[in-house]
Amino acid sequence: MSVAVVMGSASDHPVMGEAAETVRRFGVSCLEQVVSAHRMPDEMLRFGHEAADRGIDVIIAGAGGAAHLPGMLASVTHLPVIGVPVKLKALDGLDSLLSIVQMPRGVPVATVAIDGAANAGLLALRILATRDAELAARLRAHREELGEEARRRGRDLFGEA
Amino acid sequence: MSVAVVMGSASDHPVMGEAAETVRRFGVSCLEQVVSAHRMPDEMLRFGHEAADRGIDVIIAGAGGAAHLPGMLASVTHLPVIGVPVKLKALDGLDSLLSIVQMPRGVPVATVAIDGAANAGLLALRILATRDAELAARLRAHREELGEEARRRGRDLFGEA
Amino acid sequence: MSVAVVMGSASDHPVMGEAAETVRRFGVSCLEQVVSAHRMPDEMLRFGHEAADRGIDVIIAGAGGAAHLPGMLASVTHLPVIGVPVKLKALDGLDSLLSIVQMPRGVPVATVAIDGAANAGLLALRILATRDAELAARLRAHREELGEEARRRGRDLFGEA
Amino acid sequence: MSVAVVMGSASDHPVMGEAAETVRRFGVSCLEQVVSAHRMPDEMLRFGHEAADRGIDVIIAGAGGAAHLPGMLASVTHLPVIGVPVKLKALDGLDSLLSIVQMPRGVPVATVAIDGAANAGLLALRILATRDAELAARLRAHREELGEEARRRGRDLFGEA
Amino acid sequence: MSVAVVMGSASDHPVMGEAAETVRRFGVSCLEQVVSAHRMPDEMLRFGHEAADRGIDVIIAGAGGAAHLPGMLASVTHLPVIGVPVKLKALDGLDSLLSIVQMPRGVPVATVAIDGAANAGLLALRILATRDAELAARLRAHREELGEEARRRGRDLFGEA
Amino acid sequence: MSVAVVMGSASDHPVMGEAAETVRRFGVSCLEQVVSAHRMPDEMLRFGHEAADRGIDVIIAGAGGAAHLPGMLASVTHLPVIGVPVKLKALDGLDSLLSIVQMPRGVPVATVAIDGAANAGLLALRILATRDAELAARLRAHREELGEEARRRGRDLFGEA
Amino acid sequence: MSVAVVMGSASDHPVMGEAAETVRRFGVSCLEQVVSAHRMPDEMLRFGHEAADRGIDVIIAGAGGAAHLPGMLASVTHLPVIGVPVKLKALDGLDSLLSIVQMPRGVPVATVAIDGAANAGLLALRILATRDAELAARLRAHREELGEEARRRGRDLFGEA
Amino acid sequence: MSVAVVMGSASDHPVMGEAAETVRRFGVSCLEQVVSAHRMPDEMLRFGHEAADRGIDVIIAGAGGAAHLPGMLASVTHLPVIGVPVKLKALDGLDSLLSIVQMPRGVPVATVAIDGAANAGLLALRILATRDAELAARLRAHREELGEEARRRGRDLFGEA
Repeated sequence: MSVAVVMGSASDHPVMGEAAETVRRFGVSCLEQVVSAHRMPDEMLRFGHEAADRGIDVIIAGAGGAAHLPGMLASVTHLPVIGVPVKLKALDGLDSLLSIVQMPRGVPVATVAIDGAANAGLLALRILATRDAELAARLRAHREELGEEARRRGRDLFGEA
Repeated sequence: MSVAVVMGSASDHPVMGEAAETVRRFGVSCLEQVVSAHRMPDEMLRFGHEAADRGIDVIIAGAGGAAHLPGMLASVTHLPVIGVPVKLKALDGLDSLLSIVQMPRGVPVATVAIDGAANAGLLALRILATRDAELAARLRAHREELGEEARRRGRDLFGEA
Repeated sequence: MSVAVVMGSASDHPVMGEAAETVRRFGVSCLEQVVSAHRMPDEMLRFGHEAADRGIDVIIAGAGGAAHLPGMLASVTHLPVIGVPVKLKALDGLDSLLSIVQMPRGVPVATVAIDGAANAGLLALRILATRDAELAARLRAHREELGEEARRRGRDLFGEA
Repeated sequence: MSVAVVMGSASDHPVMGEAAETVRRFGVSCLEQVVSAHRMPDEMLRFGHEAADRGIDVIIAGAGGAAHLPGMLASVTHLPVIGVPVKLKALDGLDSLLSIVQMPRGVPVATVAIDGAANAGLLALRILATRDAELAARLRAHREELGEEARRRGRDLFGEA
Repeated sequence: MSVAVVMGSASDHPVMGEAAETVRRFGVSCLEQVVSAHRMPDEMLRFGHEAADRGIDVIIAGAGGAAHLPGMLASVTHLPVIGVPVKLKALDGLDSLLSIVQMPRGVPVATVAIDGAANAGLLALRILATRDAELAARLRAHREELGEEARRRGRDLFGEA
Repeated sequence: MSVAVVMGSASDHPVMGEAAETVRRFGVSCLEQVVSAHRMPDEMLRFGHEAADRGIDVIIAGAGGAAHLPGMLASVTHLPVIGVPVKLKALDGLDSLLSIVQMPRGVPVATVAIDGAANAGLLALRILATRDAELAARLRAHREELGEEARRRGRDLFGEA
Repeated sequence: MSVAVVMGSASDHPVMGEAAETVRRFGVSCLEQVVSAHRMPDEMLRFGHEAADRGIDVIIAGAGGAAHLPGMLASVTHLPVIGVPVKLKALDGLDSLLSIVQMPRGVPVATVAIDGAANAGLLALRILATRDAELAARLRAHREELGEEARRRGRDLFGEA
Repeated sequence: MSVAVVMGSASDHPVMGEAAETVRRFGVSCLEQVVSAHRMPDEMLRFGHEAADRGIDVIIAGAGGAAHLPGMLASVTHLPVIGVPVKLKALDGLDSLLSIVQMPRGVPVATVAIDGAANAGLLALRILATRDAELAARLRAHREELGEEARRRGRDLFGEA
């Protein structure tokens, strides 16, 4: 099983790095690459066309502004593509979000929150877990830990409930 | 393989019906149900908790306004949850979209376009196809058909390119 | 009489702390707790179900982003639930506000301003004062003080009107 | 126990009528009145000043556009004031919502959804139920009915779950 | 001739101070005062009622968030009221702008840009100049100076055009 | 005393007609003209330059979309210019509003609500009334009538208060 | 000289038809074609790559929602690309606008108004007129006609100015 | 061949300077000037009227807030006008963008991204390249370099793809 994390620009890495980190923390292999829709469009499409044959199962793509990368990749592959709207200097990520989520009928992109790269990683893992009972178990355990950590931080603040 | 399509209200069915229709057109079994986060919260969580054990692989959840259904289901299952923001009378679907997509770290929802139920169905199929080569082949064929239809409609309008 | 102040994450405390502080300043007892809709959904619903029986009269719930906590609590209790939209990094609190205020018919949430935790406390006190003449008198006195303070700060700036 | 439903204009009645209807359906007395912040400001403030002494327990105020009625009433009473943003021709109710919810520290308005007059009525009832066990029981029963109706409509669409 | 500059809170003074400064720079007398719609509503209305009789010709009112001051003053006077939307921490001034500008038919507020207090002062002067030829001449001269300064700063940057 | 009502296009007349009608109802003379910033820019500036000399006291200018007319007229006259944002097919008047109200320091436009031409007329009358006691009296009477009409319509709906 | 008008879907033709019509009215040849970024991505890029060699001078591209067509074409050609945001059912064209205009540094799209296909045609003509004095003269004449028509429609409404 | 870069205020230069820099880097002559629509309206129109006769081929105009400069210039010239929305303190550039892009039928402005001055320069070059094969070749080479740089930065981060 393998996830690809691609981003439109190296400057998206501070945000997108969390996606790869999350995927790897669960023991799933992860390829990271800069693939720009606008600055290397032919390679970008080729990347999408070849992804399935290279053994990639899920693509996570992050981009900001007029963010075309996730949608364009989704148009040349049948793999699930997860889009991460990266917030740039203006408009607080709203442009990135709308450019990614409002895809036309026929070509879906699984969009997560603005700058939500960690959740993109978790979503990729949920997808992979549909065929991997062990990963599914680890994700269930992770949910338990999230709750435990929230409870613990609550106790630190307010004492026992 | 099985997909569940749930919606917060029977009034969401004119939009959400396309999700089930799309899934079934590809020969995948699909359960439809009204599961309201706000009007039957306990059943809603129970639905989420039990979904995996009932053999559901992917959940598609549609809701409008303060749309909590997709996120709440995602909080009690490790299955991938796809959220469809349904447009209500005010704010043109923006409230539905933000309520679904802006999930906190730890609990992702795969959000599609406003009223994008057909794409939610296709996204569920892409997820299932990560473990089903035949379905993957059908999705690739479907992409070809989309292109063919767009071309044909273009020729009808403008003649041969 | 008792108010509960709950928040989706310990990181909401810098904002939400003012709610509890305000309630206590008027001599009303106040319980504070981290109750996350998405990281501990079962406990969250249980909290809501049991709140009335535990002697809680009003619930104040703060959350940010896809803020589901206030609405979900309101769905399992008949107590008044006050929602505080907490502003996160993107979208300036608009997502939090819409996720909380745009509840469907049947399940109201009393929403206050973005980061308006102090006002949430005052609203809880107004609700309790509908059955407590002394508290009502203190709230009237508080209104007078607000006016007096505004006048005094005005005089400091501009002299006597 | 008594609720007042006031509105800035007679033209708000098609929306605001549901608030009074909801309150009365639960056997609580309800006063309806046109009280315009901008066209009868002195009477409006007088209404607010005198409301508590007239035996009103909760005020529901609806207005659209630069909607000042709920906030101004809240500034002259210690009663809980519920604000209903009424959608006018432009901006889809966003102006009404922000004008009502973004109140400054010290003067809260309990804001419900755009055109959410029925929920304003239910919120008033929740407030009154903090001191009326029978009303509380009726509200719990109402929640059950909401769930039952949602389930029934679901079965009508999809058959038994 | 006299202008009043009022503001909802002393904390608006850093923005609103420019209005008074602008008015006085043109030799027109200017009264500054904190008049809060929400914290001293009765005095606020009284201020509006009495403004004309006190010899005030134009009122400039600044407020932020659910900004009700300009509209409420306009409802109790026939004087022209200029509203300045003051930007607060959330929503970038959009709430302030919509709360001031979207007044209902019958009660206009002359709204200027977000934080546009200097322009509010100039607008008051333009209004007064409709009956004062000398002030009109000074405003024309001021327009010339604006152009001259823009030209000069352009030359400093780029040399002669 | 004289008011000019100008509009960017004849298609704005259904909205802008109310401005002239309002002004004339109070016995003030009113000139109406199509003056397009973008289709007759030289005449537009000339109109602004000459307005004061032609005896015009106040200019009301309505335009939609990238609405430049009010601001451009304000840049070539010292008269008060009132801007009416006209709502076009897209964006619900938000583009028109922002294009008119967000003027830079030095050149104010007195902006009224989206499609608020009647209020633009009333604002012009308030401006003229700063030097005409009889008009001021008529405006005060008009305010009384507005209140009386609101009260009467309230009584028709709900009976005596 | 030749302009290409392409659109993401045949359903965009009611809007985009005006672009071609405008171009042809000035005697410039115009190719129309459906070229979908998402449904025929390879052909789309090929279209962009080959456009210059086919003698096309300017590309006009219209699309709605997550509108990627103009930006993707601009990424594979050095020709000027004009983007027309087409308004779809939700969000009033704001998604289309932001998806087209917010292009990253290096790849510009010349964006016109929402549904502004006629202006896209005129912009293409202005570009071609930089090397064609006769076309420039016709555009100047067209500007005169626009003014004349606005004046005439103004006279029809209001008589001679 | 010559490009003019004009801006509404010297304070726009930190943003707009990139436009001129980009144009000159490709060996095209570039005139920079402060031309304020609101502070020197007559000179502004004159600049537009005379631009073509002065040998200018393309105008790039940047402005913020109620940004009228690009549209007003476009109304008095047949040259292509490129508008750059400059982000000011409030509203994150949305006001600037809408004021520039939403031009009425008949007068197009080629709008680029918020603060997108570098792209404005590139768009001007693409326009000039429609009649200059050498410039076209340089633009094609520049596109190659953009891709090369993105690839190199990607390799620096992640190693060979």
